[in-house]
Amino acid sequence: MTTRIPVVEKVLSANDSIAAQTRALLDSRRILALNLMASPGAGKTSLVERTVAALKPDCGVAMINGDTSEAAFDAERSQRAGARSVHVNTGGKCHLEAAMVRDALGLIDLDGVRLLLIENVGNLVCPSSWSLGAHLNVLVASVPEGDDKPYKYPKMYSGVGVLLVNKIDLIPYTDFRLDYFTRGVQTLNPGLVTFPVSCRSGEGLDAWVAWVRARLA
Amino acid sequence: MTTRIPVVEKVLSANDSIAAQTRALLDSRRILALNLMASPGAGKTSLVERTVAALKPDCGVAMINGDTSEAAFDAERSQRAGARSVHVNTGGKCHLEAAMVRDALGLIDLDGVRLLLIENVGNLVCPSSWSLGAHLNVLVASVPEGDDKPYKYPKMYSGVGVLLVNKIDLIPYTDFRLDYFTRGVQTLNPGLVTFPVSCRSGEGLDAWVAWVRARLA
Repeated sequence: MTTRIPVVEKVLSANDSIAAQTRALLDSRRILALNLMASPGAGKTSLVERTVAALKPDCGVAMINGDTSEAAFDAERSQRAGARSVHVNTGGKCHLEAAMVRDALGLIDLDGVRLLLIENVGNLVCPSSWSLGAHLNVLVASVPEGDDKPYKYPKMYSGVGVLLVNKIDLIPYTDFRLDYFTRGVQTLNPGLVTFPVSCRSGEGLDAWVAWVRARLA
Repeated sequence: MTTRIPVVEKVLSANDSIAAQTRALLDSRRILALNLMASPGAGKTSLVERTVAALKPDCGVAMINGDTSEAAFDAERSQRAGARSVHVNTGGKCHLEAAMVRDALGLIDLDGVRLLLIENVGNLVCPSSWSLGAHLNVLVASVPEGDDKPYKYPKMYSGVGVLLVNKIDLIPYTDFRLDYFTRGVQTLNPGLVTFPVSCRSGEGLDAWVAWVRARLA
């Protein structure tokens, strides 16, 4: 088993240098890139739909959707919402890698694009280990997942720059304790910018969209 | 990159032979082993608590909890529910492997144990590729994850022997279409035994417990 470690290290370091090239390309074009991570079903695609719909009048939005199979449901939903969208089949891998994002970017007409949303594979473990070249890692948590998730996935919660807590409309029907959840988050990542939202009802999304818009300015 | 494939194949094949040894040990002791897989927060641990509480009067239950960190919340919950419980830290890996289960089993007094519950890491991608020696793979889906999950995670839904659909008490508050979900499941895995349940309210759990009890007989 010890022979596997150098292979993994080499792969991660090659990944980092590709991510740095992607970042340089994005910066030269003044494109803000967000890497969206979450459990399966936390609401990444719904958040993308809402965000694209709100920002589309102001700027071009591009979208890269990572999936473990050929099924391109999320990419199609982003496209319908108005984004220039590319589906990446990770071939069973549980995370996106920098080379996948680089190759997908090469397929998108970036003219007029100011925002790139990267929807990672639904997983709270592996995606946090792979830099993609994005400016910010965004975690979409969701109320029905439970309030213990920061305590159980500390690496994910420590490594993100923004947190959305989705499905807050379900709080009355669950045992979710917002104060316990928040205490866990703030211990791992003090001062983390957090948006409680409901992509279903629309609640809280204006603040999130305003925050993204301010970063595009 | 091509050099990585043989390494992975070799690791998977070594895994399978350890899994076969574990299965032989379990069979010789007449222990039924279930490998529980799910997204983070779908309710694996709540299901374990309910199942252990119901079966404890009849038989000893052992529990192996896989987590990506040192935090042993789930193992402690299983223990409080009455199981002989071992916490496995996967060291950041997003799935359990056969050697981890074998080593954990070595730490449990199996005297009187008839049921072994293995709680895999919360992830719908990788755990399905690793045999552990269990008799049955059990998937815990959950209503708020959305009704599109069978379509997006076909490998997971194809490879399981039982499905629980948890949090059915939330159906009225979500857009979950049970018929669309079921159609996806049945296309991938015709005739899959399915239990709609709510670990919060207790609804549907009697049928699940009766089904497990019948397999112990």
